Amino acid sequence: MSDSRFYHLQAPLFAHLAALAGEAELVYGNPEHSLGDVETLECATSADMAFVRNQAYLQDMTTLDAGLCFCPPGLETKLKALGVHTIAISDNPDRAFLRAASGLVQPRALISPDEAISSKADIAKDAQISARACIGPGAIIGEGSRIGPGAIIGTGCVIGRNCSIGAGAAISYSIVGDGVDVRPGAVIGEAGLGVIGGDAGIQAMAHFGQVHIANGVRIGANSTIDRAVFGSTYIGARSQIDNLVHIAHNVQVGSDCVLAALCGVAGSTVLGNNVMMGGRAGIIDHIQIGDGVQIGAGALVTRNIGSGESWSGYPARPLRQYLREQAMLEKLAASRGGDDDA
Amino acid sequence: MSDSRFYHLQAPLFAHLAALAGEAELVYGNPEHSLGDVETLECATSADMAFVRNQAYLQDMTTLDAGLCFCPPGLETKLKALGVHTIAISDNPDRAFLRAASGLVQPRALISPDEAISSKADIAKDAQISARACIGPGAIIGEGSRIGPGAIIGTGCVIGRNCSIGAGAAISYSIVGDGVDVRPGAVIGEAGLGVIGGDAGIQAMAHFGQVHIANGVRIGANSTIDRAVFGSTYIGARSQIDNLVHIAHNVQVGSDCVLAALCGVAGSTVLGNNVMMGGRAGIIDHIQIGDGVQIGAGALVTRNIGSGESWSGYPARPLRQYLREQAMLEKLAASRGGDDDA
Amino acid sequence: MSDSRFYHLQAPLFAHLAALAGEAELVYGNPEHSLGDVETLECATSADMAFVRNQAYLQDMTTLDAGLCFCPPGLETKLKALGVHTIAISDNPDRAFLRAASGLVQPRALISPDEAISSKADIAKDAQISARACIGPGAIIGEGSRIGPGAIIGTGCVIGRNCSIGAGAAISYSIVGDGVDVRPGAVIGEAGLGVIGGDAGIQAMAHFGQVHIANGVRIGANSTIDRAVFGSTYIGARSQIDNLVHIAHNVQVGSDCVLAALCGVAGSTVLGNNVMMGGRAGIIDHIQIGDGVQIGAGALVTRNIGSGESWSGYPARPLRQYLREQAMLEKLAASRGGDDDA
Repeated sequence: MSDSRFYHLQAPLFAHLAALAGEAELVYGNPEHSLGDVETLECATSADMAFVRNQAYLQDMTTLDAGLCFCPPGLETKLKALGVHTIAISDNPDRAFLRAASGLVQPRALISPDEAISSKADIAKDAQISARACIGPGAIIGEGSRIGPGAIIGTGCVIGRNCSIGAGAAISYSIVGDGVDVRPGAVIGEAGLGVIGGDAGIQAMAHFGQVHIANGVRIGANSTIDRAVFGSTYIGARSQIDNLVHIAHNVQVGSDCVLAALCGVAGSTVLGNNVMMGGRAGIIDHIQIGDGVQIGAGALVTRNIGSGESWSGYPARPLRQYLREQAMLEKLAASRGGDDDA
Repeated sequence: MSDSRFYHLQAPLFAHLAALAGEAELVYGNPEHSLGDVETLECATSADMAFVRNQAYLQDMTTLDAGLCFCPPGLETKLKALGVHTIAISDNPDRAFLRAASGLVQPRALISPDEAISSKADIAKDAQISARACIGPGAIIGEGSRIGPGAIIGTGCVIGRNCSIGAGAAISYSIVGDGVDVRPGAVIGEAGLGVIGGDAGIQAMAHFGQVHIANGVRIGANSTIDRAVFGSTYIGARSQIDNLVHIAHNVQVGSDCVLAALCGVAGSTVLGNNVMMGGRAGIIDHIQIGDGVQIGAGALVTRNIGSGESWSGYPARPLRQYLREQAMLEKLAASRGGDDDA
Repeated sequence: MSDSRFYHLQAPLFAHLAALAGEAELVYGNPEHSLGDVETLECATSADMAFVRNQAYLQDMTTLDAGLCFCPPGLETKLKALGVHTIAISDNPDRAFLRAASGLVQPRALISPDEAISSKADIAKDAQISARACIGPGAIIGEGSRIGPGAIIGTGCVIGRNCSIGAGAAISYSIVGDGVDVRPGAVIGEAGLGVIGGDAGIQAMAHFGQVHIANGVRIGANSTIDRAVFGSTYIGARSQIDNLVHIAHNVQVGSDCVLAALCGVAGSTVLGNNVMMGGRAGIIDHIQIGDGVQIGAGALVTRNIGSGESWSGYPARPLRQYLREQAMLEKLAASRGGDDDA
């Protein structure tokens, strides 16, 4: 469900017109089925438009209620059986979806073109708005919060109480809790990296979601947190994110996590509570990290990690294994040193 | 010693009131011992409040002069013997210290709430202040320096002569020498990542120090240099720090160092002079790097390195050893290729 | 050839005066040979000043037309034979060149000191310029483009049609195509990391080039793209560059490339078309990457890679080899586990 604080929802679209906008062929359902929003296929209701790239996405699904689904040829029977209301076929269903979606949902402008501090923002009396800051229409700034010089609070954003938003930080499409400390230069709420292929070259995927930051979180200087494609990217309570960290779209970070500088967490990965990532560590996309996991500096995590474990290395392995392998490598190389240097 | 250009020192506090503020128990010394500032335990004088987390910190100490030390149960006898004036016990001494310290030392506001360019700043006549810049009260801008559009020079900061501060750079709690070149988006002087645990979840450690940048240094675009917890983070003369580099709190970088893009140096690590770090290299915390050391691109340094050495790898090893291990691994895998692929 | 939109070209200089400015000795050619610009030695015409560091640079050259070349002792005979018009000798030819060049070519100021939005900028009627933005003299903003709050478009920059320049982005020395999406905090056009040694310590190399960004490119939040020393750093059409990515001076990126977050590409490296770099991957300087190459997350590329290959690892190897080595290492360590743990 696109949040109307951040997105303009246009007039609903008939399924046959949505298919037309997507240059796709409506092959099933009532052409005048009405569509009002966009969603993931899993979460879509009968009023939502969605898409699916391939059979694999459908694997674990037992029922679907999407109003319209763009799909590649061959999936229509399966989708019909799952309960999708109308179906449109395209060789490039994500591109078709993107085209149709732009007629349905449009992001609002970051700030008003006329006022640096919008008269339609709701700013608590004792909030401090520094010189050069910009605040968009519909934004809410809570009691006791300080907005730094040159910081941008975009249209519809909510900043809780007693927050500190650093100089030049740019926040858009975001709901921010109480006592959150965002450092200078942090960029929160931009669309993430999503790429759609096609004959005319690649193209960026639009994003329809937001960022949700819980109470007491710290976001370091020049760190970036992208908004979700659908739904929310989430940072749990009190988590401390250092400088120059990247959190991709749809990532879920638990509470009381510590991510040291230059870490990266790729799309849709989920971190439990009390996770610690050393500096420059990374986690690839769609990974599950349990509670209390410790990840070594510079490690690259490519597999799920169970609660309480410590991993390190490139690629990351359980710490004990990693240390054993390093020790063995060192020993072997030392014993063969004479040969290899010769 | 908290620098009054950056911090408000409140009225002195009696030891028993400091202990009360920290929810700790004063177990030794004159309850009316007067405390005026905060410091590390090593450097604290009789007017300073300090803390210690565990026995290990006391290991090499022979004498201490701290006015008040927060410590966990069991360290009071040792602290008494070392000369500490008053002692307060807490299960969470750093949290106790943090609570008490906030009543003693408060960071000043980044800029004046009333004026983008403070009338209380001391700006050289021929300095160029670009549109949209902000300069806090007590800041000093030297002759011939240029402050870029949207740049922030925080309260009390000193910018030397002939400096160039890039667009949108945010400098706070910093003393900057002559001829320093800070590129756009750099963030200098923020509090670093320090975490205090506790029953109610984690919390950020306050910082009471500053950043000191010597003459001729270059700080790249969007790089971040955190201020010290106590004392100074230091960047030595002429050192060239590339874009997107992170320098953590209390790091000391020597002169004529070159740190390529995306490097990270963790807390309290010390680099000698003429150190070269290749791109995306990292050094963990509390490490000593000698003069003239060369660190390969992408390496992760986890041990001290002596002057003049070249190291590479993950984790970093002496270059010769690293190359030997790589060659051996390659050779072994090639010779066993048939088996493992089968 | 220095682009006069970005650089002031001063009055031409006689060769003997250029040598004098560089504290070098003119040892060959007409002292009154006239010099009007700077260039690489390969591209220099008879009106250009250039330099060469050592014999290796001359290896593959068959003819040179430079007006003046600064060189270390011993190269004059070779340079004469190649056709250089005048020659000046210095023990530190790049420093000599730098000194002389500063009398010939000067970068223009980022924005006008008097106007945040220069009256000498050429801004399309329907372009949207947000509050707090700054636009330098001679800049061109195309139809339908939006310049975000606090964004800086430097003197002489060209922004094409239907571009979106994010909040606080700082663009200088750049030619940007149509439909380009630059996210908040991105810094484009700064001088790269170039270091000149000498008795008095190191010093930064001046840059005389620009950045050229083709149509449809996306540059992520807080990413940095440095301008070339001479000529252009180039980003090809539709390439999608994620957040916190560093692209160094003189890099050439092809079309339809995808560089995930925290990647770094070092100086003068060339990427073909459709190259994919996983998150936190890096490529060292002066490397050639073919079309369609895939580089794994966290990999460090240190060798040229042919078209269509997949590489991963630190240092990067062909994917098949990398996986074989990892599997072998794991197996070996497991089989020896008993010994090493003991």
